[in-house]
Amino acid sequence: MPSEFDLIRRYFSPPAPANTLGVGDDCALFAPPAGMQLATSTDMLVEGRHFFADVAPHTLGHKALAVNVSDLAAMGAQPSGCLLGLALPAARAQHTEWLAAFARGFLGFAERYGCPLLGGDTTRSDTGLTISVTVFGAVQPGQALRRDAARAGDDVWVSGHLGAAAAAPGLLQGRWQEDETHDTLPAVRPALETPEPPLALGVALRGIAHAAIDISDGLLQDLGHILAASGCGAVLNEAALPIAPALAPVLAHWPQQRRRAVVLGGGDVYQLCFTATPDARAQIEAAARATGTPVTRIGRTTAEPGLTVLDANGQPLADLPSGFDHFRMRV
Amino acid sequence: MPSEFDLIRRYFSPPAPANTLGVGDDCALFAPPAGMQLATSTDMLVEGRHFFADVAPHTLGHKALAVNVSDLAAMGAQPSGCLLGLALPAARAQHTEWLAAFARGFLGFAERYGCPLLGGDTTRSDTGLTISVTVFGAVQPGQALRRDAARAGDDVWVSGHLGAAAAAPGLLQGRWQEDETHDTLPAVRPALETPEPPLALGVALRGIAHAAIDISDGLLQDLGHILAASGCGAVLNEAALPIAPALAPVLAHWPQQRRRAVVLGGGDVYQLCFTATPDARAQIEAAARATGTPVTRIGRTTAEPGLTVLDANGQPLADLPSGFDHFRMRV
Repeated sequence: MPSEFDLIRRYFSPPAPANTLGVGDDCALFAPPAGMQLATSTDMLVEGRHFFADVAPHTLGHKALAVNVSDLAAMGAQPSGCLLGLALPAARAQHTEWLAAFARGFLGFAERYGCPLLGGDTTRSDTGLTISVTVFGAVQPGQALRRDAARAGDDVWVSGHLGAAAAAPGLLQGRWQEDETHDTLPAVRPALETPEPPLALGVALRGIAHAAIDISDGLLQDLGHILAASGCGAVLNEAALPIAPALAPVLAHWPQQRRRAVVLGGGDVYQLCFTATPDARAQIEAAARATGTPVTRIGRTTAEPGLTVLDANGQPLADLPSGFDHFRMRV
Repeated sequence: MPSEFDLIRRYFSPPAPANTLGVGDDCALFAPPAGMQLATSTDMLVEGRHFFADVAPHTLGHKALAVNVSDLAAMGAQPSGCLLGLALPAARAQHTEWLAAFARGFLGFAERYGCPLLGGDTTRSDTGLTISVTVFGAVQPGQALRRDAARAGDDVWVSGHLGAAAAAPGLLQGRWQEDETHDTLPAVRPALETPEPPLALGVALRGIAHAAIDISDGLLQDLGHILAASGCGAVLNEAALPIAPALAPVLAHWPQQRRRAVVLGGGDVYQLCFTATPDARAQIEAAARATGTPVTRIGRTTAEPGLTVLDANGQPLADLPSGFDHFRMRV
């Protein structure tokens, strides 16, 4: 069996960027850009909970870093680098094709998003595979997009589209029906397996947006965090929600409860929900065009607490689906 | 069952330091000291591999952060903060006394070492408990104690004492015999369960020592990393090795092979092995006195590669015990 040090050397030792000490010492060393604040976040991915054991290793490597870079996007922080922790069952450690493909997915994403792997830890697990990623980014003091910065009367926006990632597992497992063309699953699967967080948009929204959060646990739950932290409420318009285009045809045939669970409660989206003053609409649309990321206004924040979703007739939905909590069950 | 957010709020939300955004947003934000490099490291602790399932939660919280701060000590970096990832089986998440004691151990260590908890991730595990900690520290550019900085003719030093942590599991499980007084285990157990890394010494050695590493995998293996990175060799004197005083009496009665495995190959030490020019001896001894950390000269580096240990008669040991590799077995 390869040793811990062999594994790191063979798969996880990319060349270090300039002025950086990368993989191979007690710590990595890097120079934060002068005068910037450092943003940092860590996320764990646990086999059987965040990914299926048979997921393609390339997509798993991609996703492990993507969900973390999504947190940088939600702060408007430019990536500086990342650390990777792997608790590997022996079978995985011996499976060199699996490791090589995982590393390719991870390092490919790191390269494209300018988030170099600086260090990490590889250890043995006697149970399942656990992946832990930590990311660092830089943001000017006072410019980070915090959760507590929404103000009553803000527009509520989302980037990208909703529903695809939450619909994919049901379609994959055959629990939920495709339409006759069977082209929905291939179209929505990348949203689940290889999300591309809107990093450029997040960075472009600094100084424009008020509050932002990435939609990992579902729109309602994640917007709820903004509202709780900012001490305000919101009213959303269901008809305005940007459904993933590939999902829309099949969604129309699903029961209403599932439709709403997927769109309003579905997690794993890794797009941004953000608020901004209505005066900033033109700037936000310009930022969206400049970064090639669609944005949609879906409602307004209110001075009164509480989160209301109005249906197409302007009637409040009675039972809002809850989002994903790792200590509860999925909807 | 408490939600993920309840757990974080209840146990893992200490007040954030000044100029810092702590637990509760997509990222934590902190300002690195002006002009400093940032040192960062991550370590995972896996149930059944790095700790026993029945370990006292207070000591587990302590150790999870201690092994990471040890990496900062080995770079000479002053802690800035840390992130904590927890993949928790449901039984642990419901066991509030367990969680409260774990948090007390972790946050108590964080407070004493000036390494505040800034953020993290709590998720559910369907198998065992996995803990992932990331630490940050600051060090002046060019002053970090790197592995590749040893030069031929350096003294080789270790801080603290050797052997206690590696002897503790054998004594705990009754595989290895105590002496009649039965006072060895209580004396060596803290080295295994609640190590106190020599952070102040590491910081004091900046600009004095050449290379440094923390002894997590065993003296020989960790010194071997310095030698490989620095392109030199070393000769150590077995008689000079600083055995943990509480262990010395019982060690004398053990078979020679086990004695050497524990002292030369035993991991989990979390003390420093470092090298420095002989001209720096007085400065090193002054740093040791100032920080209350014993240091011992145990040999010299050589231009020729290879690691030799001489016994009390000046004869090279034939079979050197290997250190700990997470993908191999313990000695």
